[in-house]
Amino acid sequence: MKPEHIAEMKARARNIVLSVAYDGTAYHGFQRQTPPVTAVQNILEEKLQLVFGDSIELAAAGRTDAGVHAYGQVVNFFTNGTIPVSRIVRAVNSLLPSDIVVKAAAETDADFSARHSATSKVYLYRMQQGETPDPLRARYVWHERRPLDLFRMRQALDCIRGTHDFSAFRASGGAPMSPVRTMYEAVLQERPDHLLEFRLHGNGFLYHMVRNLIGTIADVGLGRLSLEEFQQILASRDRQNASATAPARGLYLYEVHYAGRDLFSFP
Amino acid sequence: MKPEHIAEMKARARNIVLSVAYDGTAYHGFQRQTPPVTAVQNILEEKLQLVFGDSIELAAAGRTDAGVHAYGQVVNFFTNGTIPVSRIVRAVNSLLPSDIVVKAAAETDADFSARHSATSKVYLYRMQQGETPDPLRARYVWHERRPLDLFRMRQALDCIRGTHDFSAFRASGGAPMSPVRTMYEAVLQERPDHLLEFRLHGNGFLYHMVRNLIGTIADVGLGRLSLEEFQQILASRDRQNASATAPARGLYLYEVHYAGRDLFSFP
Repeated sequence: MKPEHIAEMKARARNIVLSVAYDGTAYHGFQRQTPPVTAVQNILEEKLQLVFGDSIELAAAGRTDAGVHAYGQVVNFFTNGTIPVSRIVRAVNSLLPSDIVVKAAAETDADFSARHSATSKVYLYRMQQGETPDPLRARYVWHERRPLDLFRMRQALDCIRGTHDFSAFRASGGAPMSPVRTMYEAVLQERPDHLLEFRLHGNGFLYHMVRNLIGTIADVGLGRLSLEEFQQILASRDRQNASATAPARGLYLYEVHYAGRDLFSFP
Repeated sequence: MKPEHIAEMKARARNIVLSVAYDGTAYHGFQRQTPPVTAVQNILEEKLQLVFGDSIELAAAGRTDAGVHAYGQVVNFFTNGTIPVSRIVRAVNSLLPSDIVVKAAAETDADFSARHSATSKVYLYRMQQGETPDPLRARYVWHERRPLDLFRMRQALDCIRGTHDFSAFRASGGAPMSPVRTMYEAVLQERPDHLLEFRLHGNGFLYHMVRNLIGTIADVGLGRLSLEEFQQILASRDRQNASATAPARGLYLYEVHYAGRDLFSFP
């Protein structure tokens, strides 16, 4: 947005923030696209305009790629619409398709930005290891037939905890920002339904960083890379050395944190 | 099939049995349809013909409706194809779309029929109760916003255990077979992921019987029907008295049992 346009938007009476979940399979990512290509943002803005009565421009915490899912995407927008906060969730959900759902809504101060106020994010990545893929999970996991060494993958995750230059896991298409990020949490759990679930909590993520990390850590789990080689790839800061990008369908934007703000109070 | 056609098929050298899982969302049910309408059977037969080299006609344990899923559908077919049993699963799965998967294959005697030899079946039905539906489960559960009384729903399930005339829960489109069935198990569990899961194990199921039962039991859970009224509906043997059919997307054909036969030996 141009500065004068931002000022115009901020002059509106209310700043509304939403928590949104979606199945990303049918969409070309979150960020608005030119029709007939459809992104989650196109659908959300169209339905919010019907509910609020003015043109809506969303800012989002994370720009998920095509096929990536979200449990807790956070968006905000400025509006003069008068619908009470308590009625927003049902009103918007009654218009949305079944693969996009607003989980919660709140009104916040004009300075809040879902994107710029975010202090950290949690991404999940889910894999199914087994002889045959589960067709009921085909849209939601990366299937790997061969055995994965969980102990070795957890050792690799230990290497990325803390503050590092993650250039080796950054796709070339990203914005030219600093490649240094801090990873607070990097764990791998076996869920009761036997899926493997990676959980990465960091103060920021570079373009394709989670999927490039998972692709490389999977190679550690398959024995194609040693732990020492993984450490060398991280230290090299060269994308050429890392493995192929893991598929979008296993990735979930799970939570966005805003330090010092309690945006949503659930009953 | 006409009798002479059955004889022709049985004259083939091998009777192959498969365990098949699928996401039924994209298909007009299991049973073969005339193109361009596509059923799971159309896809399976097309791919099996490529692997086995002769025309394939499947018999299936259960004819699931459009949108109904399966974890353990069982099918069999006669063939002169020579591919070893140990290679069938990978060969067929390499050709199938990601929403249909062959889980296991075996060779059996000529008298076995996936449909007629079945002695009992297990269906699951999954509901999500909560304020907002989960968009990542939209294809796989029935969402109910209002609270459901699990104790009362379990009392209703207790009423259907044993041998009953289930005419009250039979859709008009079914074949004119006896409406008496025996329910060995009828339970409701809360899963670790908070979904509600009904499990019905019976020696047979009438057309739409599971979905009509679930629709009526949900009304018991919502307080729209008393337990006594539920018992009266069952005793009335009149479909007019039961509630609306529950949506197809929550239903799963989970297991098919063949007493005295151990079809698949998993490693």
